[in-house]
Amino acid sequence: MRLAELSERSGVSTATIKYYLREGLLAPGHQINATTAEYDEEHLRRLRLVRAMIQVGRVPVATVREVLGHVDDDSLPRTMRLGASVWALPQVPEPDADDEFVQGARIAMEELLAKLGWSHAQSLTTLSPSFRSLVVAAAALRRIGYEWSIETLVPYARLMHQVAELDMEFMESHVTEAEKAEVAVLGVVLVEPMLRALHRLAQEEESSRRYGLE
Amino acid sequence: MRLAELSERSGVSTATIKYYLREGLLAPGHQINATTAEYDEEHLRRLRLVRAMIQVGRVPVATVREVLGHVDDDSLPRTMRLGASVWALPQVPEPDADDEFVQGARIAMEELLAKLGWSHAQSLTTLSPSFRSLVVAAAALRRIGYEWSIETLVPYARLMHQVAELDMEFMESHVTEAEKAEVAVLGVVLVEPMLRALHRLAQEEESSRRYGLE
Repeated sequence: MRLAELSERSGVSTATIKYYLREGLLAPGHQINATTAEYDEEHLRRLRLVRAMIQVGRVPVATVREVLGHVDDDSLPRTMRLGASVWALPQVPEPDADDEFVQGARIAMEELLAKLGWSHAQSLTTLSPSFRSLVVAAAALRRIGYEWSIETLVPYARLMHQVAELDMEFMESHVTEAEKAEVAVLGVVLVEPMLRALHRLAQEEESSRRYGLE
Repeated sequence: MRLAELSERSGVSTATIKYYLREGLLAPGHQINATTAEYDEEHLRRLRLVRAMIQVGRVPVATVREVLGHVDDDSLPRTMRLGASVWALPQVPEPDADDEFVQGARIAMEELLAKLGWSHAQSLTTLSPSFRSLVVAAAALRRIGYEWSIETLVPYARLMHQVAELDMEFMESHVTEAEKAEVAVLGVVLVEPMLRALHRLAQEEESSRRYGLE
């Protein structure tokens, strides 16, 4: 398809597509002659992913480029490719390692992983921004004076593991490795807000069931 | 306790406490004489909540005041009190009702609620910012060209319902109605980031288990 059709089918303006091409977020089309290039379904799919990150996820252009580098990296085994793609997205900053709440939360969260039997996650802790987010959130609660126990978190973690199993089933329904990595990125940018909304709606439903509306 | 002790126990500076008092986010202490006021445990608890909203949740001061108005509103039955407190927090803006993707997503999400048997949530749809967030997220996926089906969402919604049941058990362990509403607000500000981190960690664990690290 020509640029005009790519624009029409994606809903992205030709000016924006040209910008993405210049920034290297989209591979060049197949040049037919000096002024015309041809694009295919792969361009369309990539364009949608770039748009999701930039317009919905508000991911900076330089970060999008980095994420795509991992998505396209055929040299990585699947787990590392998925991980690197998602980890390149904006994450919470590294917490202050000297902070006593951070130190306490890190130890407690490592205990949580041991209790859950998440041995792979245990071996990744120092690398994983997800583990860091967990430590930051747990430290924030304690710093503000709210006590939590590992026991309270275990059933939550078990349910989120079931959610992750659904994620994997969905991801596996996609054929190529690059598509699988794309799905993982989209999960963060587009599906997490949906999951959060479902969670809050479920709270409203359960609250109404238990306490009524009167 | 005096202001200095309140500051020390909460970790909030006296200047910030005075600012919260001036802004009406904290009830005045019990005046002992012209220059000294006495604060109690309730002040400490409220101070922690205000700090969680402002420092961790980045909630604007005017919004914090509105949230606290609902938390403290004894005239509301429990469901409405919890709902009003959480709904007053910053939410996604109202989507464009003329947008075809929004219209389609709204109809599909209403079907989802019917399929789930979430009758209370169904009766709240037009009021609920959580439903609106769900419609916005679903519309964003379709607009970007990613198809989803209601059937894919059902098992996710069922798991989030189980999470909501855990939330309610935790909330019910708090005594007063105001404390229950506070826990609901904290759930959004402090617990949702934790849940999101657990979800991503569970994905890493499950991905490593299925595909290995090599």
